[in-house]
Amino acid sequence: MSTAADLVERLLDGDKRALARAISLIENGDPVGGEIVADLYPRTGSARVIGFTGPPGVGKSTLIGALVRALREHDRRVGVLSIDPSSPFTRGALLGDRIRLSEHFLDEGVFIRSMASRGALGGLAEASLQAALVMDAAGAEDILLETVGVGQAEIDVVDHADTVVLALMPGSGDSIQALKAGVMEIPDVIVVNKAEHPLTDTMVREVRTALSLGPSGDWKVPIVKTVAAKNEGIDELLDAIDRHRAHVEENGALENRRARNLRSEVLGLAAARMRRELEAKVGEDPEVAELLEQVVNRQTDPATAAARLLEHATDG
Amino acid sequence: MSTAADLVERLLDGDKRALARAISLIENGDPVGGEIVADLYPRTGSARVIGFTGPPGVGKSTLIGALVRALREHDRRVGVLSIDPSSPFTRGALLGDRIRLSEHFLDEGVFIRSMASRGALGGLAEASLQAALVMDAAGAEDILLETVGVGQAEIDVVDHADTVVLALMPGSGDSIQALKAGVMEIPDVIVVNKAEHPLTDTMVREVRTALSLGPSGDWKVPIVKTVAAKNEGIDELLDAIDRHRAHVEENGALENRRARNLRSEVLGLAAARMRRELEAKVGEDPEVAELLEQVVNRQTDPATAAARLLEHATDG
Repeated sequence: MSTAADLVERLLDGDKRALARAISLIENGDPVGGEIVADLYPRTGSARVIGFTGPPGVGKSTLIGALVRALREHDRRVGVLSIDPSSPFTRGALLGDRIRLSEHFLDEGVFIRSMASRGALGGLAEASLQAALVMDAAGAEDILLETVGVGQAEIDVVDHADTVVLALMPGSGDSIQALKAGVMEIPDVIVVNKAEHPLTDTMVREVRTALSLGPSGDWKVPIVKTVAAKNEGIDELLDAIDRHRAHVEENGALENRRARNLRSEVLGLAAARMRRELEAKVGEDPEVAELLEQVVNRQTDPATAAARLLEHATDG
Repeated sequence: MSTAADLVERLLDGDKRALARAISLIENGDPVGGEIVADLYPRTGSARVIGFTGPPGVGKSTLIGALVRALREHDRRVGVLSIDPSSPFTRGALLGDRIRLSEHFLDEGVFIRSMASRGALGGLAEASLQAALVMDAAGAEDILLETVGVGQAEIDVVDHADTVVLALMPGSGDSIQALKAGVMEIPDVIVVNKAEHPLTDTMVREVRTALSLGPSGDWKVPIVKTVAAKNEGIDELLDAIDRHRAHVEENGALENRRARNLRSEVLGLAAARMRRELEAKVGEDPEVAELLEQVVNRQTDPATAAARLLEHATDG
C-alpha cells in the first residue's frame, strides 16, 4: 500500500516505478490518483508538450522513437504518452509500436507509457491529461503525446499540446482532402515521413496547396521531410518544433493557448463526471429501463425521455 | 407564427415548406421543434435510414445524388440530410455538394437539407437525429444521412443508421490503414467510387485484406465499385444496401440495433443537455472565472476545479 504522499515524494525523487504506479492509479480512476495530481499540480507547467496526430500507418511511433533519441542527445528528459482508445484489434499494432520504442525502455531519462480506454466516456482524455501532468511534475522536460485513434476525443487531447505535429506520408490522400476541406485543424508543424517514396515531393506540394487554402496566421507551418526508420530529417523536425515553441513563447500565444486548454479541460472534466454520475444512476434503475422501453416502442420521443431521465436522476 | 400543431398537420399532408420550417426550429434549438418531434414520434420508425461516411473528396455527394435518382426510379420518397459541423472554410465545398444535388430540388418526392453546427456541444448530433425523425414522419421512405466531418460526434450520428455505407476511392490510404488497425468501425457496405481509376482493383484487394483482419460476423461486407458521376454501379450499390437491410430484418439485428441506438441517443441527449446547462450557468459567473484563473495559475488542479464547478453549479 502506498499513500498519495509517499508516491509523490518518490516520484519527485525521480523514481520511475512511483511514476508508473501513479499513472496506473489515474488510469483506473482511483481517488488516490486524483490526490497525487492535486498535490503535484503546482509543480507542473515547465514541460514542453508536443502532440502528434495523423492517420495510422504513417510511422508515428518510429518518428517518436527517433525524436526521443535526438532529444536524449541533448540530455533532455523525455516522457512519451501513447493514447490508444481503439478496439481490441489494435493490440498487435500497439505491441509493434512498443517494440519500436524498446531501445529507450532502460534509459533512466525516458519514460514511456500507453493509456487505453477504461470504462467511462470521456475517461481516456481526462486520464491522459492527468498522466501528462504527473510526468511533467516528475521532471520530464519534453512530453510527446501520441494518439493512435481517429476520434474527436483523442484529437482533442493532442490539441492540448503546446505544439501539434501532423504526421503524414506519401499517399495520405484522405488527410490532404480533410486539410483542404477545412475539416481538419491546421497543425503547427507537418512531417511527411517515409520520404524515400518517389511521390514525396508531390505530397509536399499538395500539403502546401492545402495549407494555402486555410487562414494565414503569423506562423508559417513548416513541412519537414523525414525517413524516421533511417533517422533522416529528425534534426530538422526538432528544429521546426523548437522554432514553433520560440514563436509562441515570444508573442504570448503559448500562455493564451495553455489558459484556453486548461479552461476547456476543466469543463470537459466536469461534463464527463456528470455523464458518469448519470450513467451510474440510471444503469440499474427499473424506472429508467421502462422509460427507454417506451422510446424503443415509439411511445416517448428521445428528447422527452432525456429530460425525464435528468429530472429523475436529480430527484434521486 | 405557426404553432407546433399546425406545422405537424401540414407536414403530415406532405407540405415540404412545413418540413423545412420544422427542421429549422430544431436546428435553432427552438422548443417548438421539440414539441413537433414529440408529436410526430409515434409515427416514425418506418423509414429506412442509410448512413454514408468516408473521407472528404471521395464523391459522397455525387454518389448520393446518383442514389436519389435510382431510388426515384423505384418511386421511393427520399430525404437527404447532410451534416456539416466543420469550419467556415467548407462553405465552398458544401455549396458544390448542393449543386450536385440540384437536379432533385424541384422533385416533390425528394427533400434535401443540410445541418450545420449551432453553438452547444453535442447539439448537432442531437439536432440531426431529430431532423431525421421529422423526415421519417413526413413520409420519407429512405433517409440518406451524410457527414462531411471527420469527428467522432458526426461518425456517431451515421452509426444511428440502419445501414452504414463507407465510401472510399482509389488512394484512400488513410482509411484503409484505419480499417486495418481496427480504429475504424467496420461498415455494412463499402463503395469504391471513382472506379475508372487504374488502381481501383488494387484498392478493392486492400479493402478485402483490411476486412479479413477484422471480426467475421454472419454478414459478408460487399465491396461495390462505382463511378457515381457516370451513374455506373449505382444499381449494384442499391442492391447491396437492399440485401443488407433484408439480412438485418430477417435475423432480428435491425430491431436490436435500433433499440441500442435509441438508448444511446437518450443518454447522449441527456448528457448534452447537462453540459449546456452547466456552460450556461458558468459562462458569466465571477466565482467560476476566479476558479478557472486559479487553474491557469497552477493553484488548483483541473479535476479539483471541475468538482468544485459541479458543486457550485448544483448549488445555484
